[in-house]
Amino acid sequence: MGKSITRDAAPATGERASRGNGRKRVIDVDHLPVLARGCAVLGAGGGGDPLIGVLMAREAILRHGPVPLLDLDDLPADGLVLPCGLVGAPTVAIEKLENGGEGVRLVEEVEALTGRTVVAVMPFEIGGSNGLIPLTWAARLGLPYVDADGMGRAFPTMPQMTMNLAGVSSSPCLLADERMNTLVIRADSVSWTERLLRATVDAFGGAGVAALYLMDVETARRATVRGSVSRAMKLGAAIMSGEENPIDALVGEVGAVELIRGKIVDVERQVTGGFVRGSAIVEDAVDPSRLLRLEIQNENLAAFEDGEVRACVPDIITVLDAHNGEPIVTERLRYGQRVSVIAFPGPDIWHTPEGLALVGPQAFGFRFSYVPMKDGDGRAS
Amino acid sequence: MGKSITRDAAPATGERASRGNGRKRVIDVDHLPVLARGCAVLGAGGGGDPLIGVLMAREAILRHGPVPLLDLDDLPADGLVLPCGLVGAPTVAIEKLENGGEGVRLVEEVEALTGRTVVAVMPFEIGGSNGLIPLTWAARLGLPYVDADGMGRAFPTMPQMTMNLAGVSSSPCLLADERMNTLVIRADSVSWTERLLRATVDAFGGAGVAALYLMDVETARRATVRGSVSRAMKLGAAIMSGEENPIDALVGEVGAVELIRGKIVDVERQVTGGFVRGSAIVEDAVDPSRLLRLEIQNENLAAFEDGEVRACVPDIITVLDAHNGEPIVTERLRYGQRVSVIAFPGPDIWHTPEGLALVGPQAFGFRFSYVPMKDGDGRAS
Repeated sequence: MGKSITRDAAPATGERASRGNGRKRVIDVDHLPVLARGCAVLGAGGGGDPLIGVLMAREAILRHGPVPLLDLDDLPADGLVLPCGLVGAPTVAIEKLENGGEGVRLVEEVEALTGRTVVAVMPFEIGGSNGLIPLTWAARLGLPYVDADGMGRAFPTMPQMTMNLAGVSSSPCLLADERMNTLVIRADSVSWTERLLRATVDAFGGAGVAALYLMDVETARRATVRGSVSRAMKLGAAIMSGEENPIDALVGEVGAVELIRGKIVDVERQVTGGFVRGSAIVEDAVDPSRLLRLEIQNENLAAFEDGEVRACVPDIITVLDAHNGEPIVTERLRYGQRVSVIAFPGPDIWHTPEGLALVGPQAFGFRFSYVPMKDGDGRAS
Repeated sequence: MGKSITRDAAPATGERASRGNGRKRVIDVDHLPVLARGCAVLGAGGGGDPLIGVLMAREAILRHGPVPLLDLDDLPADGLVLPCGLVGAPTVAIEKLENGGEGVRLVEEVEALTGRTVVAVMPFEIGGSNGLIPLTWAARLGLPYVDADGMGRAFPTMPQMTMNLAGVSSSPCLLADERMNTLVIRADSVSWTERLLRATVDAFGGAGVAALYLMDVETARRATVRGSVSRAMKLGAAIMSGEENPIDALVGEVGAVELIRGKIVDVERQVTGGFVRGSAIVEDAVDPSRLLRLEIQNENLAAFEDGEVRACVPDIITVLDAHNGEPIVTERLRYGQRVSVIAFPGPDIWHTPEGLALVGPQAFGFRFSYVPMKDGDGRAS
């Protein structure tokens, strides 16, 4: 647990969303549309469509009340944080979830196992539906939601979390499904955690819920991407408040490059090994000779133009509906959609040599090394 | 935990093997050849070749001393019994085992999980190598070996144990591999335990060790096949002492029917879904028009002659080398081998309606119901 992770938090959003100053912030049902859009933007096309996550969180909050959103500085240093979320295919996961009781089961199991009390629930992945589902569990449990996560975006595997970089053990890893089958994995290494977790999730029928990288608040302060939830809400608010021009509002808010605006003219996609893999081609609306190719593995991993890399992991490449700025997840890309493709920097921690080894282009099988994103004139941004 | 299970124990063998009378019995290295042969006979061709199990147990006993063999009546009623053994392909399991430390890990894990002390190790399956491997762990741990098991023979799956019939929960189920990856499964039902266990064992690389159906001694007294270890030693002793005619000695000892004595003229075998499936045909040595067909799924499940069932599960069908009486496991059957095929009754508990539902012919996909074994003249035996 040696390395310290640079904070990557955006400034807090709105009057209730300032960080670490003692003012009380809560997530109520009114915040959910904003949070969902922000999670989708940070999901880089992956992590699953947050819509059903919104409905589940709405139901839980209406029944159990708003959920306090706390910065790690506002939690006791020795308190136990539960990083958690869905694993497996998000579409399957969301269909299989019946009552949200799995999250409660995870907490009960962790507390029985460790003899400690969980003080807060943290999404291990802010991107996509995983930024919202653990909020449902926090509501049911009456626990606060931590304004941080383990990715600052979405990635497909468990080793690709900042807690791993920071040396936090992935064991014990807890898994549960909607039948309340429960597993505790204590693995030799994080790659064995991943392997055993995938085998179990397959046996569950394709999806389940997980908690891993259990840690105290003090460790979490240096082992997570902080301010992720606030950041998502800020991005979502930019889209929703920029009614005339939501894309420009988002681009301005996040410091993004718009890689292209145009029409999807080709989509290739297949599901192999539990992942969605494929590519999509966008033709520029003004200059049809300009084509941008997106390479996809659950998330948008890289964007190419004329054989040049214009953006790649760990930077965040997101496809937006050109009319209303709504983020479009990779499984919803269709021929003929009018879209804007934007890219903005992923969390700083992922740009370190250790970070790039886990989540850079080569970690996904590309032969090129990370290059910073370039704007439309080919300038590094 | 309602039903009481009929004791199926053979009388104790030899002066050190009497049951429940306070006399001390131990398993020393000299007992291993006898025990191994008996386990192979009870394995009905399955459970894996006990030879390497013998070598491992020998090493452990030489290092740690002989292992007390105790009847459940000689253990404290509230003591915790650990039913355990290998899971997955026995050949893989035996190659992967490096030091036997997995069994020690299982006990540590169970004790941490339950807060109770394990008082004795019990093989969950007496048949094949699984009658010997847990003995290795008992030696290393300085714990006694229970003279009982959960099958009275070998079967391929975890629900096929007497503890299941007696209503003992299969959860928690503990798994470990030689890297010390460890899992605790708490499943909704025994069929989910089986499913999650198989997925994990596949991810381990095909084999691992397991403990499940944890119970106290009082429960074990009515939920197990008692006297299994003594019985195996008695059968092994019959083969080894009957030098002139080991097969007749065994047949006499166990009350078996010799279905045929002759030559293997055909073997079909394939590995599908983690099981060895196939058939073997034996031609009678005296009357070549007589053919016996064995149907195999890991174990010898049924024997047919002229389209009639001569023996079937849960009765125990074992192939012996015609010259020396050595049991031959299904994966070693070869064209041209001179063999004797014997059948003798499986434990009484498996002949109840509930038992037959779990381990009768229809549980293995045959369309016929259980029929008692028949001798060469077609008489029910």
